[in-house]
Amino acid sequence: MIEVVRPTLLLNEAICKANIHRIAEKARKQKVRFRPHFKTHQSHEVGKWFRAEGATACTVSSIKMASYFAEDGWKDITVAFPLNALEIKEINRLTSVCTLNLLLESAEAVKQLSKHLTNSLQCFIEIDPGYHRTGLNPTDFSGIDKILEAVADNHLLTFKGFLCHAGQSYAVRSVPDILKVHTASMSLMKSLGDHYKNGYPNLVLSIGDTPTCSVAEDFDGIDEIRPGNLVFYDLQQVIIGSCTREQIAIAMACPMVAFNEERQEVFVHGGGVHFSKDFLKKEDGTIYYGEVVKLNSNRWELPSTSMYVKSLSQEHGVIHASVEEMRQLKIGDVIGVLPVHACLTAAAIGGYTTLSGRVIEMMGKV
Amino acid sequence: MIEVVRPTLLLNEAICKANIHRIAEKARKQKVRFRPHFKTHQSHEVGKWFRAEGATACTVSSIKMASYFAEDGWKDITVAFPLNALEIKEINRLTSVCTLNLLLESAEAVKQLSKHLTNSLQCFIEIDPGYHRTGLNPTDFSGIDKILEAVADNHLLTFKGFLCHAGQSYAVRSVPDILKVHTASMSLMKSLGDHYKNGYPNLVLSIGDTPTCSVAEDFDGIDEIRPGNLVFYDLQQVIIGSCTREQIAIAMACPMVAFNEERQEVFVHGGGVHFSKDFLKKEDGTIYYGEVVKLNSNRWELPSTSMYVKSLSQEHGVIHASVEEMRQLKIGDVIGVLPVHACLTAAAIGGYTTLSGRVIEMMGKV
Repeated sequence: MIEVVRPTLLLNEAICKANIHRIAEKARKQKVRFRPHFKTHQSHEVGKWFRAEGATACTVSSIKMASYFAEDGWKDITVAFPLNALEIKEINRLTSVCTLNLLLESAEAVKQLSKHLTNSLQCFIEIDPGYHRTGLNPTDFSGIDKILEAVADNHLLTFKGFLCHAGQSYAVRSVPDILKVHTASMSLMKSLGDHYKNGYPNLVLSIGDTPTCSVAEDFDGIDEIRPGNLVFYDLQQVIIGSCTREQIAIAMACPMVAFNEERQEVFVHGGGVHFSKDFLKKEDGTIYYGEVVKLNSNRWELPSTSMYVKSLSQEHGVIHASVEEMRQLKIGDVIGVLPVHACLTAAAIGGYTTLSGRVIEMMGKV
Repeated sequence: MIEVVRPTLLLNEAICKANIHRIAEKARKQKVRFRPHFKTHQSHEVGKWFRAEGATACTVSSIKMASYFAEDGWKDITVAFPLNALEIKEINRLTSVCTLNLLLESAEAVKQLSKHLTNSLQCFIEIDPGYHRTGLNPTDFSGIDKILEAVADNHLLTFKGFLCHAGQSYAVRSVPDILKVHTASMSLMKSLGDHYKNGYPNLVLSIGDTPTCSVAEDFDGIDEIRPGNLVFYDLQQVIIGSCTREQIAIAMACPMVAFNEERQEVFVHGGGVHFSKDFLKKEDGTIYYGEVVKLNSNRWELPSTSMYVKSLSQEHGVIHASVEEMRQLKIGDVIGVLPVHACLTAAAIGGYTTLSGRVIEMMGKV
């Protein structure tokens, strides 16, 4: 085992590369463009692993992240977050070094952008496939047409197509239910495409949540997929039905510092600043922030135990353990924890250590 | 107003310095040593503002944070987190540049530490004043004595006193209830001091949560206080009763990117990677992640509205607003949000911008 002395996010490179390979292979087979979302890993190096699988375009969730990946030579980047025209300065800089695709929600934002745009830019209109976060209703043709008019008013802007994120798949708990979400969102995207294909024959339909892209095999009529979380997966994806625990590529290594046998609690260094604070609920209503895995020489083993993280404060993690499980542990042991939400955990701790001890850097803060 | 184009954590220097002054003044008046906890701000510069108020010693929550503040010349640092002897290498380095005080929970950890310790080190024993996280029961004399024996076995170790964090104060919702927690934890710490004062005449009793230190005026018999959050305060402290909204020193500035009038939702750039994900519950059970304030030229105004952050995903913030409130907003506006939990928010976004536009750096990641 590599030397761990403080909370450390371990990355199993082999599992991660297998996750990337599986989806890249599926995209090739299904003849859809693979434009992976990089918001989960936020790392140049992990981005290169996608490039090795043939990805030439990527998705990010902020202009700042677009700049970070443009620095590493990505030449075709979609910012899958509603256009924020206040960032015009960096948008203009980026359009001079790469093909930038932005996401539109309103004619108003397009008009704000248009005033100061200096280079050509491609645009998607975001469609709400039933998640009810951002995006236009797929039958709101009047709203869509207003945006298309605002786009047509500026010769630097090109309408590229429709993009959706079926985030309602995060609420389901089985493969058949994930597939229902997938079928419904594909269907409404294709109807939308049919409605606009005469005016825009090269229209791109882009979808992309990890649950549906993980389990679906049929992408007929869709042009592009943008899943992100599946680079690492996490416990949330396990309970949705997107993956198995064996496919989770990261685990937090946390030194054990104390225990309380009476309350069946083990205390580790590893808190909200390392994991962030997303949680899941067991069937009986118990809240948990992670599941314990055993760390062995150069790898972790899947839980043969029922130990879980029951609470997190800033630096403390409190693990529930049976008395028997506790007796197999001692202060100074390093305990592995599978995270509930890989994206927020990676962003919180800000870097990875591979099982051979190599540090992999991420995008910085501020 | 300074130019904000992406999520930016604004720091009102005047409010922050007033918060620091108020507690430093109280400590002087009550003749208790002020050893502020720096885990909330994690910033050299903000640390200097405490120094300007006479603080010569500080508290941190990790060895890494101790190293960060030692770099800036802090010479007396308490790590208020259970000793993790795996960090011996950095502990030995730190003890050669400053007075380091570590927190003990067990004789086992002391023995592990003792094996490789190269310089003198001071120790506190952590006492559980009813919070039931880490710490020994205040009447567990046998457990305490075992630790004291392990400390006595190593001539480099000095027992300095007892330290507690009455974190149960975070569950109360009124000043009288905060004071009950304070009276109870002071009382048990003083009893413990009385029990050990013959053997250890210079014994230090250290307490330190923000709610009790904010509202209590009586610290008789206590030697040291270690509050941290009160440098900024937050909505959690407001509902506990520790402070008013006027005393909150930070607010997240978030660009508005979209809205949905039917669902009364305003979408901003500002998500879990900026705020972290602690939340509060209104009396009717509604969950919220922040309250909206109006940003004006160089300051924010307290909410005259009822707008609150109803959900956060990685980069999106969803704000609930009345139809009337929504009509006063437009895409491209910058919306201010008071955070629920200042410590995790500051750590998540990783830096501050003052109201004059100056960037204040924090401890880095990895």
